[in-house]
Amino acid sequence: MSDMYEPKPEHKFTFGLWTVGNIGRDPFGEPVRHPLSPVEIVHLLADVGAYGVNFHDNDLIPIDATPADRDRILREFKAALQETGLVVPMATTNLFADPVFKDGAFTSNDPKVRAYALQKTMRAIDLGVECGAKVYVFWGGREGVESDAAKDPQEGLKRYREVINFLCAYVKDQGYDLKFALEPKPNEPRGDIYLATVGHALAFINTLDHPDMVGLNPEVAHETMAGLNFLHGVAQAWDAGKLFHIDLNDQVIGRYDQDFRFGAVNLKAAFFLVRFLENVGYQGSRHFDAHAYRTEDYEGVKTFARGCMRTYLILKEKARRFDGDAEIQALLAEITADDGTMAPFQGGYSRDKADALKAHPFDRVALGRRGLAYERLDQLTNELLLGVR
Amino acid sequence: MSDMYEPKPEHKFTFGLWTVGNIGRDPFGEPVRHPLSPVEIVHLLADVGAYGVNFHDNDLIPIDATPADRDRILREFKAALQETGLVVPMATTNLFADPVFKDGAFTSNDPKVRAYALQKTMRAIDLGVECGAKVYVFWGGREGVESDAAKDPQEGLKRYREVINFLCAYVKDQGYDLKFALEPKPNEPRGDIYLATVGHALAFINTLDHPDMVGLNPEVAHETMAGLNFLHGVAQAWDAGKLFHIDLNDQVIGRYDQDFRFGAVNLKAAFFLVRFLENVGYQGSRHFDAHAYRTEDYEGVKTFARGCMRTYLILKEKARRFDGDAEIQALLAEITADDGTMAPFQGGYSRDKADALKAHPFDRVALGRRGLAYERLDQLTNELLLGVR
Amino acid sequence: MSDMYEPKPEHKFTFGLWTVGNIGRDPFGEPVRHPLSPVEIVHLLADVGAYGVNFHDNDLIPIDATPADRDRILREFKAALQETGLVVPMATTNLFADPVFKDGAFTSNDPKVRAYALQKTMRAIDLGVECGAKVYVFWGGREGVESDAAKDPQEGLKRYREVINFLCAYVKDQGYDLKFALEPKPNEPRGDIYLATVGHALAFINTLDHPDMVGLNPEVAHETMAGLNFLHGVAQAWDAGKLFHIDLNDQVIGRYDQDFRFGAVNLKAAFFLVRFLENVGYQGSRHFDAHAYRTEDYEGVKTFARGCMRTYLILKEKARRFDGDAEIQALLAEITADDGTMAPFQGGYSRDKADALKAHPFDRVALGRRGLAYERLDQLTNELLLGVR
Amino acid sequence: MSDMYEPKPEHKFTFGLWTVGNIGRDPFGEPVRHPLSPVEIVHLLADVGAYGVNFHDNDLIPIDATPADRDRILREFKAALQETGLVVPMATTNLFADPVFKDGAFTSNDPKVRAYALQKTMRAIDLGVECGAKVYVFWGGREGVESDAAKDPQEGLKRYREVINFLCAYVKDQGYDLKFALEPKPNEPRGDIYLATVGHALAFINTLDHPDMVGLNPEVAHETMAGLNFLHGVAQAWDAGKLFHIDLNDQVIGRYDQDFRFGAVNLKAAFFLVRFLENVGYQGSRHFDAHAYRTEDYEGVKTFARGCMRTYLILKEKARRFDGDAEIQALLAEITADDGTMAPFQGGYSRDKADALKAHPFDRVALGRRGLAYERLDQLTNELLLGVR
Repeated sequence: MSDMYEPKPEHKFTFGLWTVGNIGRDPFGEPVRHPLSPVEIVHLLADVGAYGVNFHDNDLIPIDATPADRDRILREFKAALQETGLVVPMATTNLFADPVFKDGAFTSNDPKVRAYALQKTMRAIDLGVECGAKVYVFWGGREGVESDAAKDPQEGLKRYREVINFLCAYVKDQGYDLKFALEPKPNEPRGDIYLATVGHALAFINTLDHPDMVGLNPEVAHETMAGLNFLHGVAQAWDAGKLFHIDLNDQVIGRYDQDFRFGAVNLKAAFFLVRFLENVGYQGSRHFDAHAYRTEDYEGVKTFARGCMRTYLILKEKARRFDGDAEIQALLAEITADDGTMAPFQGGYSRDKADALKAHPFDRVALGRRGLAYERLDQLTNELLLGVR
Repeated sequence: MSDMYEPKPEHKFTFGLWTVGNIGRDPFGEPVRHPLSPVEIVHLLADVGAYGVNFHDNDLIPIDATPADRDRILREFKAALQETGLVVPMATTNLFADPVFKDGAFTSNDPKVRAYALQKTMRAIDLGVECGAKVYVFWGGREGVESDAAKDPQEGLKRYREVINFLCAYVKDQGYDLKFALEPKPNEPRGDIYLATVGHALAFINTLDHPDMVGLNPEVAHETMAGLNFLHGVAQAWDAGKLFHIDLNDQVIGRYDQDFRFGAVNLKAAFFLVRFLENVGYQGSRHFDAHAYRTEDYEGVKTFARGCMRTYLILKEKARRFDGDAEIQALLAEITADDGTMAPFQGGYSRDKADALKAHPFDRVALGRRGLAYERLDQLTNELLLGVR
Repeated sequence: MSDMYEPKPEHKFTFGLWTVGNIGRDPFGEPVRHPLSPVEIVHLLADVGAYGVNFHDNDLIPIDATPADRDRILREFKAALQETGLVVPMATTNLFADPVFKDGAFTSNDPKVRAYALQKTMRAIDLGVECGAKVYVFWGGREGVESDAAKDPQEGLKRYREVINFLCAYVKDQGYDLKFALEPKPNEPRGDIYLATVGHALAFINTLDHPDMVGLNPEVAHETMAGLNFLHGVAQAWDAGKLFHIDLNDQVIGRYDQDFRFGAVNLKAAFFLVRFLENVGYQGSRHFDAHAYRTEDYEGVKTFARGCMRTYLILKEKARRFDGDAEIQALLAEITADDGTMAPFQGGYSRDKADALKAHPFDRVALGRRGLAYERLDQLTNELLLGVR
Repeated sequence: MSDMYEPKPEHKFTFGLWTVGNIGRDPFGEPVRHPLSPVEIVHLLADVGAYGVNFHDNDLIPIDATPADRDRILREFKAALQETGLVVPMATTNLFADPVFKDGAFTSNDPKVRAYALQKTMRAIDLGVECGAKVYVFWGGREGVESDAAKDPQEGLKRYREVINFLCAYVKDQGYDLKFALEPKPNEPRGDIYLATVGHALAFINTLDHPDMVGLNPEVAHETMAGLNFLHGVAQAWDAGKLFHIDLNDQVIGRYDQDFRFGAVNLKAAFFLVRFLENVGYQGSRHFDAHAYRTEDYEGVKTFARGCMRTYLILKEKARRFDGDAEIQALLAEITADDGTMAPFQGGYSRDKADALKAHPFDRVALGRRGLAYERLDQLTNELLLGVR
């Protein structure tokens, strides 16, 4: 059984350099772990069984690196990839750490900052593509405000759109095989961040010049911070053909960004998510954008990384059982039973259909009286999760 | 000065029959006010100076009314409108009160319930159009789940879409001059409601057959429940040309649906919202979807309604002053100053532009060192709001 | 194994008349279940295996009942108890449903309402004691405000205290064997409720005339609404000797009061709670203050009630396994290891001890470097919960 | 009028070294401001008109300072105090920044860490007293857990209590004129922090050996993070004689710890708080535990600090007007009117009183029908705040 929960390349489990490489600094505390080099992180990830590694430009190449530094670091990093077999499915830009981005990058009120952010992103795209990335993530963590006096939200959207349009054209012009994935977040580190949720980002894509090449990178913690149902957001992104990437972790509602180990807070929500991803046939990375508790040394970091993957695989097996559980499936069939009598009213509009439906007698009271057995279904789900059925 | 804050028809202040007619029942308490008839409510609204009145089908016509009842009620209601000069800019369907809708209406697992909901909505659209409504609101308050075991969120979206498509075609086929406005809400009365936020609803519209006739009816309380910045959502809806209607009220973050008097909780957020609506030239109703505290009698209800409108007008005047305040405007000009040197890198993509930008030297450290004076701007805003500047 | 999860009297599982008797009305919807009589509810609870039944005065005796009605209802209710063997461990007062309590009961601004609430509570105490109750709960659901302009919070506390003091004296004077248990809640149905959390209620008890006879009735949903860690509150109440009763259910953070089936939202939090109650030797009722989804008929209500108890017992068994799991216990021993060298500095103060400690050299850097293996411990906990260890 | 809003020593406005000295680092970004020395901060605070300055031990003396460093720094700091006239009303210990405290200080699972924390606090108390502090704050920011598997909450409370008892005895033994003030917080930087709210901390004090010398330091942001009504907590602390200090700032509910400028988010809540503090005669510091936005340079930091104080004084003047507004006061008198007929039932218990009350006839329906005019009162409050009355 334990083999069933061993990570394999086909599971497409990935981690960012910044996740297992997180040194444990927080707003109130200094680092608790020494920094690892990118090469060391690649080996750590290979050790625990990951499939791939993702990065922000400056996770790999320091912002002040010389061209010679860049070349050396990149050479060593690629050698480590080759040695371990790890791949780089995704890359992204750090547009938040440097003071220059204190008012955002693409939506900064300062046109020079916006231009610099665009320059930095083009270079970072080049770097990502050079390392093999097929998905490029945009997390606009500082694109927002603390006070709505300071920035017109319409202007913010306009600036954002202009840059994404420019970068889409850049990627096409370069002939890169690269898709963009926007990562929404409601707040932190800014008071309010633009494109706050999966929904806002999805809607924004529809206003772009090249909507086809732009999708989403939803993150469990980010929707959960706002108390939104993450599964529903993911399903809507999938329905729109926009689930290009996903960030798995965990989070308590209404708190600071916690980036906990996958499943650490709510196993049931994690279960429905894994079941969805597996059942719809999502082919992208399962990226764990999480980090170990600050109480851990690097042994703990490895345990953390293994735990993320193992929990995913346990829940995947639970999903298989749920879909094969006769009692549960019978209940689901009953819940969604259709005796076919409504067929004449379903599907596309026609005037006849509308007229027929308007004239159809319904026994509203009887329909309302039917018990739906959702308590039973939910309890069976819980018992399956607890391993007692 | 007080005249400045008197509601006038051009302000387009509207209330629902269900708002001032709210009888003060809550999950833990019985009604505290006797029901008013629609005619009485129309007169109450005329008294306080409202411009229009909106309704759910069953606010006006009880769900079990006979055709004769329907005719009589409608005749009396129209007479009251005529007498008072009030108009009906918006109508909607009650798809939540009756037990038949306990698992939702358009997304219920029961195909008969879905068909009945569609029938009921067609009839309610007819009623709304007959009363003059130009906007038809869809609040899917029970379209959701308590347990994700019970309903596949993809299926939910599919069912929702099929019905909205059908109804769009119905309205077109009838030749009605009517637009649809979706009203998102994250939760309550269901554990999680589909189309949870302005963003999710905007994105959904893009998947419809007739996206042009469908827009949004964002509500302060609904986005605020999830701790989202309402202004940002409204701005995104406006940017997409989708702000068809708006529900004004107030709410504390992370609580039950409170529907408080406009401005009751957060005057600053209300100020930025009013300023936005006035400055972009929003022409739709300012609809107060709120109700008086349960402590009030109908005198209190009138005070409540007058307070909603008066606060809006006070904040509108504050917005005018903000835009005319020399110190604030100088600061805003400084904050968004553009010396023109970035012009070569702005606008649409070209390879030359990209090359030039990639080669451009930026003094990142100097850019990061600039103080942005947002504390001053925000403090000036607060002082303007407090009437001390 | 299934027998292990059957409820038995020694488990002390209780339900309120208002819980399984809930008719499914919510702020947006009409009742979905017909009302059951108290006698019917007693039989339903006996069917599902409950130990006891609790009530508000008006759950049993309607507020407008005549003395003859009261006698008859009480006689029938007692007969049902006798027939089924169910007991009444707890009773409470309905101080929230009637319009008279719209501004609270004990803290209403109207002295007549305060006096009436006191009268009603004395009578309800008499009723509870007559039925055998040993714990009397006070949930001050309307003791609060929507606007802090309306009531001085100091005055609110003063009024609250005066009444509880009076009632303590009343109970003593009557010679009743009865303890009081305050039930905190942060909001809903009022904007803000006094004694918002377990902490606030505990602190309040210390200001009473008879603190010994007053303890707490913490509720999962109420602390969770505010995003507080319920276990920590329960532990503090236990530490203070004040865990007189407990309300078990479930709730998503930052939402309307959901009163879901125990374990429905967060199995891990429920697990730590059950483990705590069992390990400290809590002897009181395990009261499920929850209700079935509105989608259910009375079959669903029974499933709901059985599910509450069954989940508790499953988690109790998980707790037993956790405490017997060699790997987990070894890890816990390591985590809390004490080599005894600090013993001279522990315990009560003495000047010598303080001097010695002030002079003691610590290797701060080495202490900070130690990894604490909490990721491993938490992952093992998750795997135990999932039934894969 | 502007003079009315100038800070003066009698207003007792204080700031921490760490507040105006905050360098703007956050979880996603590097510092944006260069560090100021304690002496520079003292001068900055004198410039803006503050009365006092508070500190954590390591704000003043680095954790690795030699005795010689300590002496020099202290000498220079005292000279700056003398030069500027600023005082040090409060001091506290940094028990969170160093990796040694990653699992808490007083409640760490490691007995050596607990002993070290106790040592560090004794030394820090000595330092605070030497600088004149009369209040010593305990913020247990890391006293908590991410996983309840890792620490027994009862054990956490026990350890916490033992240390506070020891330190009370230490202070008494040293003959220091010093009171303790516990500062509650629900979460961040730990997943869940012990003594989560004002209530929990108040209750904890009652379990100490020397409850008289321990009170509270409530913070706006900390209670607001959990969506609790801060005023209610402060009122309960005041009622218990435990409001020893207060931390003023602002915060959006359900978010990361923002420490915004006082009044930045919710002017109405700030108004009721200022009115309370002024009306009850609170004599302690008005300490602004806030920091400037990360967008600011030190000019912005000064504006921020001035804004905190100015907003307080504006709201103080609003409170004066509220209490002198004839319409508002008449309404309040009406709301709390007492015709004296209930006097026989008020006050302490007697059997006669109870009997008389139980027999008293109440017209419940009439009492429930009375309108309470809270909408009018709240609207008048808003208009007063907006400066239009």
